[in-house]
Amino acid sequence: MLTITSAQNPRVKAAVRLRESRARRKQGLFLIDGAREISRAIDAGVEIDEAFLCAELCTSVERQTAARRAGDAARRSYLVTPDVFSKLAFGHRAEGTVAVAVTRPRTLQDLVIGAAPLVAIVEGVEKPGNFGAILRSADAAGVSAVIAADGGHDLFNPNTIRASLGAIFALPVCEARSVETRDWLRMNGIAMYAAYVGGGVAYTSVDYRRPAAFVLGSEAEGLSDTWRTEDVTQIELPMRGVVDSLNVSTAAAILFYEALRQRLAT
Amino acid sequence: MLTITSAQNPRVKAAVRLRESRARRKQGLFLIDGAREISRAIDAGVEIDEAFLCAELCTSVERQTAARRAGDAARRSYLVTPDVFSKLAFGHRAEGTVAVAVTRPRTLQDLVIGAAPLVAIVEGVEKPGNFGAILRSADAAGVSAVIAADGGHDLFNPNTIRASLGAIFALPVCEARSVETRDWLRMNGIAMYAAYVGGGVAYTSVDYRRPAAFVLGSEAEGLSDTWRTEDVTQIELPMRGVVDSLNVSTAAAILFYEALRQRLAT
Repeated sequence: MLTITSAQNPRVKAAVRLRESRARRKQGLFLIDGAREISRAIDAGVEIDEAFLCAELCTSVERQTAARRAGDAARRSYLVTPDVFSKLAFGHRAEGTVAVAVTRPRTLQDLVIGAAPLVAIVEGVEKPGNFGAILRSADAAGVSAVIAADGGHDLFNPNTIRASLGAIFALPVCEARSVETRDWLRMNGIAMYAAYVGGGVAYTSVDYRRPAAFVLGSEAEGLSDTWRTEDVTQIELPMRGVVDSLNVSTAAAILFYEALRQRLAT
Repeated sequence: MLTITSAQNPRVKAAVRLRESRARRKQGLFLIDGAREISRAIDAGVEIDEAFLCAELCTSVERQTAARRAGDAARRSYLVTPDVFSKLAFGHRAEGTVAVAVTRPRTLQDLVIGAAPLVAIVEGVEKPGNFGAILRSADAAGVSAVIAADGGHDLFNPNTIRASLGAIFALPVCEARSVETRDWLRMNGIAMYAAYVGGGVAYTSVDYRRPAAFVLGSEAEGLSDTWRTEDVTQIELPMRGVVDSLNVSTAAAILFYEALRQRLAT
């Protein structure tokens, strides 16, 4: 295997460039680091183009396993020195493997949903950490699919991948326009519940055992008018203190777990 | 009112020093910025020692109100230039007022709890953002008090204040040792529920309408053995996906809102 000792190596420089959203879009590639995240991506069948491995940093069984699996899965693997690796790894993460993976965007039509789907629509949430946190909770609560609507979403932002703990690879996730998403939900007979602050039906008074979708908006902007139609039920969470809203990822988790509670109780 | 035009001014330098935990402890003072946070602190009776006001940045009614109230409440107020203000404000926050407030640590004995208290114990959670997020959700769900147990908690870290949106001032919050906290809960007849990953009673099968306390630990360390006793019920949240845990602030919010759901249903 080729060993790279210089951060000026063109493969390393090309990979580092994938920290930028524009480069990810242009090249159709994105970065994964973290032993757990890489293992979850490979489990989910994500295509690995390149693997950069740093033997000195593979100091645990989990890290060694991730490095071996990434090396096996990748079209091209390179050994790199700790110095070079520090240029590739995101933030303070240095777990011995960084993978370059192939973006395979999914559309609404690709989503396979079961008999009683529970879907999350996330409209215009701009912080990757919040979107990743929603994915982590959605995975934990057994949500069927997550749709990033009317975007600016950069699905494969490193902060999203990290905050999701790799759940982004296990869950069916796609991008779509809000109007198309609403039509798709209608066509599939999925009841729509949009979370608003103040005004609306108590979120606990709804029966989520039938096919249901939660629609969540950004804290700053709220939801677009797409969701202000008769067949979208406005729900709200009680606010008993001085703060006037919950973090969007917190509200999402409370809704997901209320749906799961009802579904497990039957 | 004195106008300060140099960041080298000793009052400014002393205030900037309060960004450090050690200086806060030593001086018994902490910083508040953000118009909303300052207003909530004053509402809650927090003692304001100094107010640094920047007229140019008070560009909304909310900001002007916070500046006026902080100026009225403070023992000493200063006008500062935008340049000086940028040294005082935390991160990208520049809302026209930074206040130096007096730390008044509360103890378990100071906590006034009602007839059916709902208490949150947060043991060893090291990230200020997570602790602040727990405070925000606790306030929203009507939690009676939050106890930071066996610390390293720096209650008045700027990130905690910000993530709590100022809820830290409205809620009864105190620091205590875990063992003392457990004794205090026992003495007050408050049932204890410790959240563990895997193993335990389904969190939805418990009756939280009577006096109840949720005990939450850090994601990295879990809970100490203090909570492994017969009168502490181990509860768990279902995990249906590939990730093996929820963020501690997410788990906290789900528990708080399940308790509130039960209490509102009666």
